[in-house]
Amino acid sequence: VLTVHHLGASQSERIVWLCEELGIPYELKLHARDPVGQHSPPEYKALHWVGSAPIITDGDLALGESGAVVDYIIGKHGGGRMSVTADKPNFADYLFWFHYANGTLMPSLLIELGFAAAPEEVRKASTMAARMRERTDAAYAAIERRLGEADYFAGDELTGADIMMLFPLSHMRRFLPRDLAALPNLRAYLQRVGARPAFQRARRKADPTVPANLS
Amino acid sequence: VLTVHHLGASQSERIVWLCEELGIPYELKLHARDPVGQHSPPEYKALHWVGSAPIITDGDLALGESGAVVDYIIGKHGGGRMSVTADKPNFADYLFWFHYANGTLMPSLLIELGFAAAPEEVRKASTMAARMRERTDAAYAAIERRLGEADYFAGDELTGADIMMLFPLSHMRRFLPRDLAALPNLRAYLQRVGARPAFQRARRKADPTVPANLS
Repeated sequence: VLTVHHLGASQSERIVWLCEELGIPYELKLHARDPVGQHSPPEYKALHWVGSAPIITDGDLALGESGAVVDYIIGKHGGGRMSVTADKPNFADYLFWFHYANGTLMPSLLIELGFAAAPEEVRKASTMAARMRERTDAAYAAIERRLGEADYFAGDELTGADIMMLFPLSHMRRFLPRDLAALPNLRAYLQRVGARPAFQRARRKADPTVPANLS
Repeated sequence: VLTVHHLGASQSERIVWLCEELGIPYELKLHARDPVGQHSPPEYKALHWVGSAPIITDGDLALGESGAVVDYIIGKHGGGRMSVTADKPNFADYLFWFHYANGTLMPSLLIELGFAAAPEEVRKASTMAARMRERTDAAYAAIERRLGEADYFAGDELTGADIMMLFPLSHMRRFLPRDLAALPNLRAYLQRVGARPAFQRARRKADPTVPANLS
């Protein structure tokens, strides 16, 4: 049976949400972070050598890495639903936002976060934090433009691209606050997603203490 | 016509290689890095708001982000060749290495590189560089194990997973040297890839001053 190993408040929240949107059977195993340092606990690390969330198991298979897990579940258990095929006009939009989420946006935010937590002399002496902030500013501007063209990242329908993009736009803002006042399209998007029954079910099951209201 | 905009010594070398392996028609436009700072030049940034390599154009479409561009070309111009479908036993292997390359490995290496270039007090005061080194050590160990099981990352055949994985294993080592003496499977893999006619054609066309010998 497909088992989603969810580490509290981590990228595996995407996978619970995906399974709820697809309406497929899955088992949810909740894992708590190590109280010291908030890392993955040893039993989570033992599931797959990557050691970080998300990790799923499916029979003999253990699989990590968000993009791989989303593609695997859509392809293997979702009959291709929530993806966009090469014959559709929005194929490239789907692919861009799907891959951009963890290929560029998440790394930029994690580096920004790493510097936010670093001693002041580190922040002052390095130009990396400022460069990442410029990059994420450009990202938010592009996201706002995109969500003015379409209700969801790939077009009219919620897809795997939204499953990938929501985490940097919701979870990460709890640690790197960002003023959304000038981004009405993004605010409307967050309300639209937060109102989805499958999203609310995922929150209740995976992270009941985190509000489903995303704005 | 499909146009690959290649920025010298950058992730767009993947896209040239992919087109050569698929044997599809494409136009190659070479762009030189800004002499100051070695960033993308203004005309490259004007192609797509992400501003960094790779970027392709195809009719009215401009597309960035390595994973998206590889999936797009395979799906739209390659008839699905060099990918692995959900009905195959190595579907998960394909997806894992494809997404791991830019979702985790490249960010870890780029952070390591950022710290290597930072003032000494930054390196000393931060734990991020050391954590990234631990992560990439684990990555190299897993890569060595994987390449002991199969000739290519997804199995017997070269696929998009290799197109994604080679860059961190070749290009990035020029800036973050790593001793491969204890990694015979990886060394054999690099020889295998470097000997491919399509890889050699891509090198000659895209980066003729960079040796095709990868070891």
